[in-house]
Amino acid sequence: MLITELAKLCQAQVQGGNAEQEVSSAADIMSALAHQVTVLSDSKYKKYLKDTQATACFISVKLADEQIPDGLTLLICDDPEISFLDAVKLLHPEPAYTRQVSTQAVLAEQVELGEDVHIGPFVSIGAVTRIGAGATIDAGVRIGNHVSIGKYSRIHANAVIYDHCVIGDHVIIHAGAIIGADGFGYKFRNNQHIKVPHVGNVEIADFVEIGANTCIDRGALGATRIGAGSKIDNLVQLGHNNIVGRNVIICGQSGISGSCTIGDGAILAGSAGVADHVNIGSRAVIMARSGISADVEPGAQVFGSPAKDRKLAWRELAALSKLPELLQKFKNLETRVSDLEQ
Amino acid sequence: MLITELAKLCQAQVQGGNAEQEVSSAADIMSALAHQVTVLSDSKYKKYLKDTQATACFISVKLADEQIPDGLTLLICDDPEISFLDAVKLLHPEPAYTRQVSTQAVLAEQVELGEDVHIGPFVSIGAVTRIGAGATIDAGVRIGNHVSIGKYSRIHANAVIYDHCVIGDHVIIHAGAIIGADGFGYKFRNNQHIKVPHVGNVEIADFVEIGANTCIDRGALGATRIGAGSKIDNLVQLGHNNIVGRNVIICGQSGISGSCTIGDGAILAGSAGVADHVNIGSRAVIMARSGISADVEPGAQVFGSPAKDRKLAWRELAALSKLPELLQKFKNLETRVSDLEQ
Amino acid sequence: MLITELAKLCQAQVQGGNAEQEVSSAADIMSALAHQVTVLSDSKYKKYLKDTQATACFISVKLADEQIPDGLTLLICDDPEISFLDAVKLLHPEPAYTRQVSTQAVLAEQVELGEDVHIGPFVSIGAVTRIGAGATIDAGVRIGNHVSIGKYSRIHANAVIYDHCVIGDHVIIHAGAIIGADGFGYKFRNNQHIKVPHVGNVEIADFVEIGANTCIDRGALGATRIGAGSKIDNLVQLGHNNIVGRNVIICGQSGISGSCTIGDGAILAGSAGVADHVNIGSRAVIMARSGISADVEPGAQVFGSPAKDRKLAWRELAALSKLPELLQKFKNLETRVSDLEQ
Repeated sequence: MLITELAKLCQAQVQGGNAEQEVSSAADIMSALAHQVTVLSDSKYKKYLKDTQATACFISVKLADEQIPDGLTLLICDDPEISFLDAVKLLHPEPAYTRQVSTQAVLAEQVELGEDVHIGPFVSIGAVTRIGAGATIDAGVRIGNHVSIGKYSRIHANAVIYDHCVIGDHVIIHAGAIIGADGFGYKFRNNQHIKVPHVGNVEIADFVEIGANTCIDRGALGATRIGAGSKIDNLVQLGHNNIVGRNVIICGQSGISGSCTIGDGAILAGSAGVADHVNIGSRAVIMARSGISADVEPGAQVFGSPAKDRKLAWRELAALSKLPELLQKFKNLETRVSDLEQ
Repeated sequence: MLITELAKLCQAQVQGGNAEQEVSSAADIMSALAHQVTVLSDSKYKKYLKDTQATACFISVKLADEQIPDGLTLLICDDPEISFLDAVKLLHPEPAYTRQVSTQAVLAEQVELGEDVHIGPFVSIGAVTRIGAGATIDAGVRIGNHVSIGKYSRIHANAVIYDHCVIGDHVIIHAGAIIGADGFGYKFRNNQHIKVPHVGNVEIADFVEIGANTCIDRGALGATRIGAGSKIDNLVQLGHNNIVGRNVIICGQSGISGSCTIGDGAILAGSAGVADHVNIGSRAVIMARSGISADVEPGAQVFGSPAKDRKLAWRELAALSKLPELLQKFKNLETRVSDLEQ
Repeated sequence: MLITELAKLCQAQVQGGNAEQEVSSAADIMSALAHQVTVLSDSKYKKYLKDTQATACFISVKLADEQIPDGLTLLICDDPEISFLDAVKLLHPEPAYTRQVSTQAVLAEQVELGEDVHIGPFVSIGAVTRIGAGATIDAGVRIGNHVSIGKYSRIHANAVIYDHCVIGDHVIIHAGAIIGADGFGYKFRNNQHIKVPHVGNVEIADFVEIGANTCIDRGALGATRIGAGSKIDNLVQLGHNNIVGRNVIICGQSGISGSCTIGDGAILAGSAGVADHVNIGSRAVIMARSGISADVEPGAQVFGSPAKDRKLAWRELAALSKLPELLQKFKNLETRVSDLEQ
């Protein structure tokens, strides 16, 4: 694609170099070569600009006063990160494959397929399930009975959706994710664990993305809910009856026990853990590997296990690093006091 | 179902309200509406009783002296939790689907199917494998060669069971679980990791439940064993040659390295980790996110990483929160001692 | 197999007992019975030798001076561990099953199959994908478009490999592993998370082993790479654009965020976590459950979260255990100083 054309499609103004050249792919600023387009959006990386071999670079006005290599065309724009994402999509389009309902898929009675759905081989879909228009169900997916999949959603290969779950529009569920398995609940009687029946479901709102091999359990009664626009990474465990708000970010390997509420815009960094019946306020940030056993205020930033205010936790860790020395000093001071006492 | 009928089936006595009304579903006490049945078993929730819109409520004699809303029928019983579970199962029966061996399943030679088994589409079963009477194998499951699946067990969609594994009766294995993959063992020689062959298997006793996407590795030699009645949550890692006792509870995302023994009735809370060759005593409790690198006594309750006695660990954490102040106070005290010395 | 024959095939010399007996299987020294072969390679286990019922035992000259039971044949060798592994493979050969391309597999256009590939039932393979000679693709595996699988590699059941990934020779990928899902990247604009397109891939070099249900995300731009001979356990999360070196060991449930480099021969023990853009030096050891947020020097051994030098971390933990007592002692000392001041 010509740089001029790319600039127009990505809301950028060309400056310098030869904008009538072709760019064929995108790369980061440390590795971009000729005929590639790159981006400089973070001043931390501006040292790489002067030596880049890229042919074009999305950049803000603010950073465009750096030393520019000869022949590099700047693509001046308001939001280089977003313009670059658009360029990546234009230069690396997803290949258009034939959309069809595989003859090797098994559909039970009363399955409703919207227009232009794609159903891969070895997909099985239970009774009374609806697949929205434009949805893509990849190979080997199992969708249970009485499920609803929204429009333009994509369920990647070998994911499993249990009965009665409701998936919104424009949802992405990655390979191997399991939506709607029974929650982990038992009552201990007469030396055995009696299973709590799980007759609820999982309801996932629009524009949610669910990572590979992530598990979201159904409610015991009622639903486990994921709000619109929330993004969940790989290998996350979301237990029964959690209510996750809108635009929440849950990073890889985090686990949320059950019956928790996670407020809108909250962020759980990698491997965070949340005990059951905990409320996490909106826009709270749970730092990586933290363990939450009590409610977290909206906007709070917490760290540690059990987690506390981030700055407090760091102050304690800093203090801990001085503790071995303190123990020694204390001994000395005790001796000095003993000497004084004599 | 009429309340009177439900009461009889769930070992409860009706009291108050109109017991000739219908209830159609179950809900928790905070959200129950008219024509629903609920439960009050925990005094923590008794504040919700006076405003509940439920039509009927399982309750113990002890809690039945609370303020009861007009029109609510109490269902007095010895064990409200269990009676309520029974009610949930009665009001939300699993739909009876047609049981059959799918024509889209592939069975190798010498597969033995018990009576009334259900085999979903795209299931493949290896040679010389036996599926017990009444077992349900859902879509996309792969069962290897020389496997035995017990009676009335259910293997959910896309789970995988490697060769030679033995699964008991009434076992539930959720979607995506992997039973019998090779353990993680290598010998480092000449700058390469030589794979330890894993010729053992996994043996799962009766009434075990295994969560979605959980992995249980086969033994290197001999078996990895899960005792009867044990319950394992989602995304758990159980390494090779672990011997898990009876009625053990292992919560989500816990990991047990290998060659450990876990005593009967032990509980591992969420994201617990256990190093290899560790013995955990019966009824020990490993608290959430704890890391175990040494044996744990029967009945002990441990916390932290590395874990120690729960109370001791908390005492240390409480002390740590005073450490920043202590450092300051120590400095002051040093000054005072210096002053005294002069 | 006769002991004499086994000894010859495993580079060992027979000594004592009756080497013309048969051994039929292998077992560890604590559980071996008659007609089994075992090994003593670690002096920690030598106490078991005098009572073993095994018929033969691989052992080094150094340990062969222990008390030897009557009738036990020693198999003296330089490297008992490796000789024993060879014996295990000889005594427990993987059964030879018929190799074929299942008629229930779906291959898209321009799929190239090498000689002697095995493709199980319900496998689907995308367009322009190549499967190397001698490779084994088990039941239910989904392989995307434009993928390359090397020679003699084995992809176990229900694993998923997304488009454009490159898998080397002699690679083992266990069941349910997901290779090449999108990385977890978003830009937050106008109160919504905009997905970063992931147009890179995953490249896995020769002799790598990937555990069950492990996830390796594709690069956003460029590749996520796993170097030759590296071994990755179950339920590991490897984010986008990580570059893992050669012969690296990553134990179960570890997570590496993204854009990290892991040097050759590094070891990440169980449930280790690594923040993004971190460099871990070659042969560094990250101890179990440690959290890494800053670069780690080659050969360093670190522990804790955030991790620090192993010995330092342990010194701090030892000091922490004395802190509750220190707080009490400090109070006493303060009183004594006050007394002196009066």
